[in-house]
Order: sequence, then structure tokens, then C-alpha cells
Amino acid sequence: MNRLPYIYILFLLPMLMISLNVSAQEDYKLWLQYAKVQDSKLATEYKSKINGIVALENSETIQVASKELQLGLSGLLDTKIEVQQNIDSENALIFGSKSSLDEDILKNLKKEFDQINDEGYIIKTIQVKSKNHILITGKTDVGVFYGVFHFLRLLQTKTSIENVNIADAPKINVRILNHWDNLNRTVERGYAGFSLWNWQKLPDFIDQRYIDYARANASIGINGTVLNNVNANALILTPQYLEKVEALANTFRPYGIKVYLTARFSAPIEIGGLKTADPYDAEVKNWWKEKTKEIYKRIPDFGGFLVKANSEGQPGPQNYGRNHVDGANMLADAVAPFGGIVMWRAFVYSEHDVDDRAKQAYSEFVPYDGQFRNNVIVQVKNGAIDFQPREPFHPMFGAMPKTPLMMEFQITQEYLGFSTHLVYLPKLFQEVLKSDTYRKGKGSTVAKVIDGSLDNHKITGIAGVANIGNDINWTGHPFAQANWYGFGRLAWNPNLDSEAIADEWLRMTFSNDENFVNPVKEMLLKSREAVVNYMTPLGLHHIMDTGHHYGPGPWVSNLSRPEWNPVYYHKADKNGIGFDRSKTGSKATTQYAPEAAKIFDDVKTCPEKDLLWFHHLSWDYKLKNGQTLWNGMALKYQEGVDEVAAMQSTWNKMGNYVDEHRFKEVQMLLNIQHKEAKWWRDACLLYFQQFSGKELPKRVEKPTQTLEYFESLKFPFAPGNN
Amino acid sequence: MNRLPYIYILFLLPMLMISLNVSAQEDYKLWLQYAKVQDSKLATEYKSKINGIVALENSETIQVASKELQLGLSGLLDTKIEVQQNIDSENALIFGSKSSLDEDILKNLKKEFDQINDEGYIIKTIQVKSKNHILITGKTDVGVFYGVFHFLRLLQTKTSIENVNIADAPKINVRILNHWDNLNRTVERGYAGFSLWNWQKLPDFIDQRYIDYARANASIGINGTVLNNVNANALILTPQYLEKVEALANTFRPYGIKVYLTARFSAPIEIGGLKTADPYDAEVKNWWKEKTKEIYKRIPDFGGFLVKANSEGQPGPQNYGRNHVDGANMLADAVAPFGGIVMWRAFVYSEHDVDDRAKQAYSEFVPYDGQFRNNVIVQVKNGAIDFQPREPFHPMFGAMPKTPLMMEFQITQEYLGFSTHLVYLPKLFQEVLKSDTYRKGKGSTVAKVIDGSLDNHKITGIAGVANIGNDINWTGHPFAQANWYGFGRLAWNPNLDSEAIADEWLRMTFSNDENFVNPVKEMLLKSREAVVNYMTPLGLHHIMDTGHHYGPGPWVSNLSRPEWNPVYYHKADKNGIGFDRSKTGSKATTQYAPEAAKIFDDVKTCPEKDLLWFHHLSWDYKLKNGQTLWNGMALKYQEGVDEVAAMQSTWNKMGNYVDEHRFKEVQMLLNIQHKEAKWWRDACLLYFQQFSGKELPKRVEKPTQTLEYFESLKFPFAPGNN
Repeated sequence: MNRLPYIYILFLLPMLMISLNVSAQEDYKLWLQYAKVQDSKLATEYKSKINGIVALENSETIQVASKELQLGLSGLLDTKIEVQQNIDSENALIFGSKSSLDEDILKNLKKEFDQINDEGYIIKTIQVKSKNHILITGKTDVGVFYGVFHFLRLLQTKTSIENVNIADAPKINVRILNHWDNLNRTVERGYAGFSLWNWQKLPDFIDQRYIDYARANASIGINGTVLNNVNANALILTPQYLEKVEALANTFRPYGIKVYLTARFSAPIEIGGLKTADPYDAEVKNWWKEKTKEIYKRIPDFGGFLVKANSEGQPGPQNYGRNHVDGANMLADAVAPFGGIVMWRAFVYSEHDVDDRAKQAYSEFVPYDGQFRNNVIVQVKNGAIDFQPREPFHPMFGAMPKTPLMMEFQITQEYLGFSTHLVYLPKLFQEVLKSDTYRKGKGSTVAKVIDGSLDNHKITGIAGVANIGNDINWTGHPFAQANWYGFGRLAWNPNLDSEAIADEWLRMTFSNDENFVNPVKEMLLKSREAVVNYMTPLGLHHIMDTGHHYGPGPWVSNLSRPEWNPVYYHKADKNGIGFDRSKTGSKATTQYAPEAAKIFDDVKTCPEKDLLWFHHLSWDYKLKNGQTLWNGMALKYQEGVDEVAAMQSTWNKMGNYVDEHRFKEVQMLLNIQHKEAKWWRDACLLYFQQFSGKELPKRVEKPTQTLEYFESLKFPFAPGNN
Repeated sequence: MNRLPYIYILFLLPMLMISLNVSAQEDYKLWLQYAKVQDSKLATEYKSKINGIVALENSETIQVASKELQLGLSGLLDTKIEVQQNIDSENALIFGSKSSLDEDILKNLKKEFDQINDEGYIIKTIQVKSKNHILITGKTDVGVFYGVFHFLRLLQTKTSIENVNIADAPKINVRILNHWDNLNRTVERGYAGFSLWNWQKLPDFIDQRYIDYARANASIGINGTVLNNVNANALILTPQYLEKVEALANTFRPYGIKVYLTARFSAPIEIGGLKTADPYDAEVKNWWKEKTKEIYKRIPDFGGFLVKANSEGQPGPQNYGRNHVDGANMLADAVAPFGGIVMWRAFVYSEHDVDDRAKQAYSEFVPYDGQFRNNVIVQVKNGAIDFQPREPFHPMFGAMPKTPLMMEFQITQEYLGFSTHLVYLPKLFQEVLKSDTYRKGKGSTVAKVIDGSLDNHKITGIAGVANIGNDINWTGHPFAQANWYGFGRLAWNPNLDSEAIADEWLRMTFSNDENFVNPVKEMLLKSREAVVNYMTPLGLHHIMDTGHHYGPGPWVSNLSRPEWNPVYYHKADKNGIGFDRSKTGSKATTQYAPEAAKIFDDVKTCPEKDLLWFHHLSWDYKLKNGQTLWNGMALKYQEGVDEVAAMQSTWNKMGNYVDEHRFKEVQMLLNIQHKEAKWWRDACLLYFQQFSGKELPKRVEKPTQTLEYFESLKFPFAPGNN
């Protein structure tokens, strides 16, 4: 019986893999892991400062806040935290809104309360009967809830709570996710499975995911969600579906999350039985008023409507010779009595307009400045085309001072590698928010436009197109969770630094070990530039394949609408490449403030990252580093591939700091990203080489396939082709 | 500071709800919970008998078996189990296949090895050097793996392992799941989310779910899976997809699971560039030979093809004037050199055939008996129509002695309430398997037909249409997991009792507490009759709504094909109700063996559960209990509703035995089931009442709505309408 497989010992390690159901759960828990605090000194401090928790109220919101505290603290401190009925003992964690506080406490918080708005909070060490306690309060219960999450974040990120004294409040009112989810549960640009909303089982079955979705959003201050696709289906407004929407609204309410719906402009015809949807028609106006009343009867705190009108085939006021103002104001009048708002999208362009697509939204909307009702907010994508890896800020920002504009970011990676590419988007978001519109002189950043401070707007908003689906890990790629998290944090405060956000997300999601946090943070921060380099360097844009938008397709030129074809955007020919939007070209630069226009117009001052967005340049054009445009572009593509390889080698060293499940997941995904980065490099360079007629610089690797091969690739069932 | 909310204490209980991410994971773990053994006496016995585990081999299969043992035992015994390099100590758990055993052990196992086939196993307490050990062995590594799962099941179900002595082997060769999954990840009849197969991320991303799917199947002996829909897309046979299929096959192989694909008969045209798919055409034959070679080059153990041909619009040999034998044999010849099989479905019926739809499959296939190649197996649904809540066994069983027939059960609840109705299907499966065909005298059960014992067939098979999707709990309804489990157990041994299966599933999935197991088992066993009663009592069938098949639609009469309309099946009129399939009617009874035909033909001997399947009877017909048919039917509908109410009250008492997450989930789902049971009762009785013209008996509750209301209901996005 000594025929024993000694090499068998070699197989002991992989065996741990089996315990993966547990880790799958870690994937599910997002940044709310509440893992046990490893630093014993800190753990001792935390425990000494938190003898028990005392809730001063029992509203639904305070209840869920209390649940969250119990869940979080029991995990972080690895001990059951008592909910006390009084604070006779020292070091209680007390939470409740302003109205629940006694005078003796209130009088010491005047300064802090003055600093915050209704959603803000105060976290402060206070004395009650000369005993120390930590108080979490705010003007509303939701403010307290946000404070609870901030307090938990302190413990999650190794921060001392000795004499804590924090007062914080959101800078933007409407912090909202847009779900492009269809009623059949497909998601228009979804790469993490399918829609969370199980319409078949609603309203009577409340999936635990709805609750955990609300918890995750509340933890980062997101306070609204648009449940359905901007390419809308009117059925969502029928009683059959409103009953289901109501159930979701009831589930989200304690978490401070309002429900919004997209309104299909032709709904009065499709479900109302009217002959028209003309916003001037009395019956149509009345239909929307009655429909709105019906909605608010079910959902008293319904947020309002999001509308995509006369865009990419969606119906709108122009079908009746009316304009965006007519349409938006009609809906605004319907929701106004109930305090609702209308978010009207500015993402419009027409195949009948021969002008540069990048100019059309500005041309169409800016003349309407000042004509919208005060409960209308115009939703503008970050750039003038469509969520490309890099775009200059949209010229509409700052150009409509009398109209509140809200930002539309895309969290789901339609053009950035789906859920297989690791791309840390807060870096992109921050680049846009910090951009200077110069509309009121230097420092008139996009952030100041959307937080309302530049033009003193009451309604302010920021929307993120969700990357959330029913995959167990919510976002398909474990690191795509950071984009959901980062969007929420920047929505709360557009001035936050993306590096600080990466730091806290990594600590909350994976580990506080500096040997993990520092290199992986580095990897995150570089990841966005990497994808720009291997997809669309130097200002290139919209050269992806058609329909699903997966992979490169610079050669596509046969689509019915000219501005749908990549060739429309790169304009590569033997003379060079790039879209001349300067004053010698489409004059798109004239849509910016003079100071900005001047910078973009002049090829010498135009940032090289935006070079080919604004200029058509010869292949021999000399870049600042002395390289020719052709060589520089080729090296950028190679650089992108190399950066992914560097990400792989960084991650491969992290096995000791993360659970094996997520470690392997990310490893597999980085392998795919590396493969696809080469695909982008090779396909684009081989295609452009036909025009440049030049050799690839030595440092660029040999193409892995022929151009014919790349052009032959078809992906009939890629997400987005559904 | 004494304004403290004392009622706040009331809110402590619900707070536990927050710890649900943990429970969501329990949902995910299926019957492989491996929860700590509560019975301390047993725990002591188990620990004393399992000092450590010793693997005698290190094949991939033995490795995963070892991992499973470590995971299972560490959970059940709440202690880390050592993997030993030798068995010098007593009470080792030794596992390895026959070839790894020493002579001295082998000689004592002759009897056991004679009892088992290649997939069987032996679990036995043995002596080595006069020391006791437990040995798990078999003729193959997969047999050992099955034995490991059986051994774990002993511990999961409170069974002593004192002097264990078990030898078991599967009675059917091909135990397979059919996934009706499309390449866009929709599932034709899926009620648990969407397809598990993430084609977009394959082949390079191996989702942990693939591994846990394989573990769950292996644990119940399922050894094959058809990845794609029987309504097939030829693209699955292109290199782009075969590369992905290969990755899944590699993942499943260690778990003893073979991959099969559906073959679209017209593939030679659609992806082969041929002008025809005629099975007599040399190019077509050659195309399939070459395609098969290509598949086996990637997947040496590829299982073979499943084909739906000339059925419901699918292409097939009849398009070329050939027949099912021609089509099946052509494919059989292609896979034969590689040991593959062809599963050819008998689910055929034609709108051009005016004969009773229930007769058409028999009429078309029975004449072919003996003409199929010996690697063809004909796949027959359990009944002659289509997976109804109850159907008499399909007359083809036993009628083709020279042809192996495999059973097709539907695990997904297309006609049984989707994933919101709790229905324990093994009860249905067992009813069919125990049915007596009388083809070789009394006792010629369907089970003996499909296990090959009645007609001595080498190839035997049983297929279940999967109810698995990407919901976290796999099957949408926590109790639908029992149907996956029960199918696998009956596939292993069609003579198992559904009550015993319910008992072990409940213990493994929830609790061994008798106060839980006994009442809930009772609930499971009654659940199937409940759904029959509130949907289709007394032999009614096919009266569901159209397309999605969700809810009642006995009034539907406007569909293009007569046999698609419910009115075709219930034939209700003022004279009565039911489909006369006796010798005075469609003569479908003549397709059964004379003994069976006699029973069904005579209204006196025909089982009342099948009454209206075989007979059209007047509303005043007297049932055995003395009630008129109308009253009896109405009371059956009411009985079904009452049984669901009883299930609710049973479940509501189980809160202490199951985690709160699953407790609440099932509670919500039972509420929906109760609501929908009333919907079925009211819609059907109000409709049939138009013909009977009779009052409802007193014990039947008043209808909740009008017939007009029920007829007006539309479900455009119900699953199945995708």
C-alpha cells in the first residue's frame, strides 16, 4: 500500500479553488465587504470608541441605517454590536436627525449645521454629561444614513475615529443612474448579464438584489434611478407596469432613492388611444397630466421623466413641427404640481443635417437657452459625439447660462471594451469635470457648470448610464465596480480626486495592505490612458465596429447614414488623418468660448491628446516629441498594448492579497484585454497604413493577422446586437 | 436625552435581514450546502471514522473529487481534513479507482465489482493491516467521484457510516440535460434569468458558475449536457463558436460531463455554402462527416447531436422528400467513427394532418422501428401532447422494441407556473416511469423501456429540459432546485421513490430537523396534484394562454393551426367536455397495447385523472364519488386553490428551520402561486360555465373577476415571448 502518489502533494494548492461559492459572494458584496480590521491597534481604538449603537428614531431610513451599522461593525470589528436603549455608558455611537437631538447637543452643532444642506451630515465626537460619544446627524434621516456610510468608510479605510469631526454634503442635487434596460430584460448596452428588474415576478416578488442595489447606491450618495431605456417602450406607463414600478419605488424609498421613468413621446398614441402626440394638442397635454397624476397617486415621491426625443429615430415634438422646448415644457407642466422634474436629453443629430455631427446638439439647443420651464434640466453627454474613450468636453457646457445642464456619463463600457477591459473611468470623468469652458473667464470648469455654481442654478444633476446587470458580481468585471463607485463619489462631489477615490475603493473592496493598494492604484490610474492608446490615440474617435461597437472597424463606410461610418470621423487619406474642426474646417471650435476655441484652433496649442479631433494633419506632421504623426500614432498603439502587459504583471503579483476567485477572474480578463488591445493596434495600424504607405516603427510588434482577417470578423450575438 | 424610542426594540428582528448576501450564497449552493452536522453523536462518529483522506491517484477527476471531499467534510465536520500521504494511521478515507487498488484489497471486492458497471462505485469499510478504513472505489475515476458524492450524502442526511457497505451503479447510460438556450442568451422556456453560457466572454473567461454547474450535475450523476436550443442556430457549428464549446467541454470533462450540440439540419446550406441539405446528397453527407471530424478534433469525447427535425417549422429530411430514418442515419454515420450518438426527437405533428395530434408522433415513427442505425436513440416526450401538468404515458413507449427510446422530461415549468409555482416534479416523473405499457405483459413499465431492460438495448437515455438560468439561485424558485436534483436521481435510477428523493433533498438543502423535513416533504409530495387541480383537473390539457403559455386561455380559438388552440383539446360544448380518443373517437387508444387500450377505452375503467383526455362526457356524467362532472370539476379547481393555501400555512411555520432569506423568498412565491391558482380556477370555471350553464357548487369561492377581464389580460414580455 505504499504505491502512493507523492506528487499528489502538488495538487493540494489548486484544491482551495473549490471554496469559490464563498468568494462569489465577496464579488457580490461590492465595496461593502466589511472585512475584519487587520490592524490590531486600530481595531482596539474602534472597539473602545464604539461600545454600542443608539438610534434616536425609528423611521424606515433610520432602521436601515441601523441595520447597515450592525452589519458593518459586526464584520469590521468581528463582534456583535449591541443596540442600546440609552447612552448611560460611555462611547456610544448615536445617530438620528436634527429633530431628534436635545438642545444641549444642538447648541454645539450650529456651525456644522450651517455648513450642510438637507442631504448632508455631521459626524462628531461630542460630550453628553461629560462622557464622550460619537454622533452621526443631519437635517434629514437620509443625511444621517449617508453619514453612517461615511463613518463605516472610515473604518473600512484604516482611518482613526479619535475626536472625529466631519461635516459634508453633496454638491449636486440629482445624482442618478440611467438604466438602458428593456422590458424583456435585455440591456441596450449591457455587459454584465441582463436587467436586474424581473418584471415577470414584480410586484409581488422583491428580489434581495433590489435591496442590495439600493444599499450600494445609498453608500455612495446616488439618490435616483431611471429604471428603463431612453429608447423607451410606452408600456412602462400602463397600470400593469406602474404597479411593478411602485413596488420598486417602495423598496428603494428608505434608502433615499427616487424612481424616474423614461417617457416615450408617442405614448399618448400607443397606450392612450389618441390620434396625435402633438404637445400643442389639448387632449395630449391632458393625457400627460392625467398619466402623471396616476403615477404620483402610486408613487408620491416619483422623481420625474427622462426623455430622448427626435434622436436616432425616437418620436418627439418635431414630428409635429414643434421643438424641444414645446415638448419638454409640456411634460414639465404635468409633473410641476408634484415637484417632479423633466430631464431632456440633448443627444441629437440628424442625417439630413450636412454639418459636422459634433456641432448639431449645440446648434439645436443653445438658441433655446432661457425658454425651458424651471423644472426642466437638459442632459448633455460629456462629449459632442458619443462616449468615446476620449472626447473634448461638450461645447454646450457653459453655453446655456439660463438653463440648468446635467452631465451624462456612460459607466457601462459601450466603447471601452465591454466588461472584459479594465478601465478606471473616474479618471475620464475627472478630466471632463476639470475642463475649463472659460465661459466666465479662467476657471469656469465643467464641474462648476453642472454643480450650478457658475450660473446659480437650483436644480443640478449628473447621470451615469449604469453598468449594472444580473451577473453575480453586478458589473461583469470586478474592477468595473470601481466605475459605479467612482461615479457616485464624483456625483456627490465633482471636485474629488480620482486617485483618492481609487484608494478608498481598493481598500473597501480588496485590502488595506499597502503592498496591494499602491501598485494596483497605479494600475487603475494608468488604465484609462492605456485604452485610449490602443483604441483611439491622439484624438481619433468613433472607429469601432458597427452595431455592437465591439472591436475596431475603421474601414466601415457602407452605413446608410454618413455620420455612422468611422471613415466620416478619421478622414484618413494619403495626405493625412483627422477631422478638421478648426476655423479652416467645420468650425466646431467656434462653439467654444473664444479662449478655448483659440487653444483648439491652433495646432501648436491644441493638446496632442485632442489633435486629430480638431485637425487633419499630414502623416509627416511633427509631434512635440519630434516623431512623425505616423510613427507617433503607431507607437501610441504599441504603448497601449504594453501598458496592458504591465497591468498583467502587476496583477500577477497580487495573489496573496485577494481571494483566489477574484484574483483568477481578473487574470483571465486581463488576458482577454491584452489579446484585444493587440487586435485594436493591428487592425487600426494595418488599415491606416494603406493611406500612410509607411513602415511601422521598429518598436511596434508585427501584426498578429492580416487586415483582411480583421475586416472579416463578425459578432452576430455580441451584446448590443440583441 | 431620555427621549428614546422603546418600540425601537421591535425593529431588531427585521435587522437580521441585512445579512442576506450570506444567504443569497446559500441559495447558490444548492443541495451542496455541507452545513455543520448538528447531531453531536453522529458528528463524533463521523470524525472518528474520518481521520484524513487518502487519494490513490491524481487524475483531474480524482483531484476534483478530493477537492469536493475537503470542501464537504470541512463544512459538515467543521474542521480541516488532512490529505494524508499514507494510511499508517487508522480510519482513513481512501479513494481511487480499481486500477489503483492492491491485490489484498481487490480480492475482497470481487462480488461488489461484479455488481457495478463502469460508472458505478463501491463504498465499503475495509481492513488494511487489521486497521479499519473506508474505501471509495469504482471501475473508473468518474465512478469513484460519484461514490464520493454518495458518501458525502450519507453525512448530509444523518446516515451512520459504521461498517458502510454500498455498491451502486446507474441504470441508464445517457443522463442528460437539454438547455433550450439561444446564442443571444435568451432561453426559450427559461424562468430563472438567462443562459449560463456567456458566449461573449468564452473561451478565455471561465465563469465559476460553469464549475459549480458541473459539480451539481456530477453530484446527482448527470453525465451529459446539450448546450443549445433544439430550435437550433447553425452558427454553433462554426469555428468561432466551437472554440467556445471546446472551452466548456474542457471545463466539464473532469466532472464526467460530456458536451452535446443540437444540429440544425439545414446547416450545410447556412454555414456550409451548399445548395441543399438533402441527406442523400453526397456533398451533404461529406459536409457532416467533415464537420464532425472538426468537432472531435477539438473535443475527443464529444457526445453527439440532438436533432429537432421537421417539427414546428424546423428544417429536416422531409424538406427533400426523405424521412426521419434518412436524416438520423446520415448524422449517425458521421459520428459513429468517434463513438458519438444521435438523439432524434419524436416531437412531431403537422397542421396538414387532420388526425388527432396525440396520434401523430406514433403514426410517423413506429413504422421506422428497426431501421435506425444502432447509435441513434429516439427521444420521446413523456406524453403525446406537450409537457402538460398531467398526460398519460406516450404510446410510443414499448411500441418500438427494435429502437432504443429515450425519455424527454421537462424540468423547466413551461406549463406549470414558471418559476413562481412550487411544484415537485419527481412525483410527475415517477408517475410516468411507473406506468405500465403492457407491451410484454403486465409490469412492462415505461422505466423498463427506457432503462433498456424490456428490449435489451445497449444505448439507454433520459433527458431533462433544464430549468437552470443565471439567477443567483440557479432555478428562480428555491424549490425548483428539487426538480433538477430529482431528475438527476431518477435518471440514475428510475425506480427510486420520489418521496425518498424529497427527503434527502430537503435534508441536504435546508435542514435535518424532523419538524421541518416531515411537514415540508408532505407539502412537496402534494404540490404536483395541486397544480393539476387548479390548472387541468380530470384529464384536461393544453388550455393555457398562447405564446408564453403563462396563465389560463381555454377560450383561445383563433390561432392559425387548429391544434394550437385550446378549444381543440377541451372540446367544451353544451353537451359536455373532453376529447374522445377512445375507439368511438380519434382511436388514439388503439396506439396502446390492448390491455392498456382496454382500460383507457372504457369510461368505467379509465382512471378519472385521465378521464377528459380520453372521453367527451356530459356535464351531468356521474363521477365515482357521485358528483356530476361539472360539480366535480369545479370542486377540483377549488381543491387546487385550497392545497396551495395549505402549503402556505405549512411554510409559514418553518421560519425557525431555514435562513430568513429563503424563508421570505418562498413565502413571497407561495403568495403569487395562491393568487395565480385562483386566477386559473376562476378563468377556467367562468369559461366552461358558459357551456355547462350550471351554478358553481357552494364550496367553490366566488370568482375574483369577470371572464371578460381574464380574457383581456396580455403579457407581451412574459418569458417565452422574447
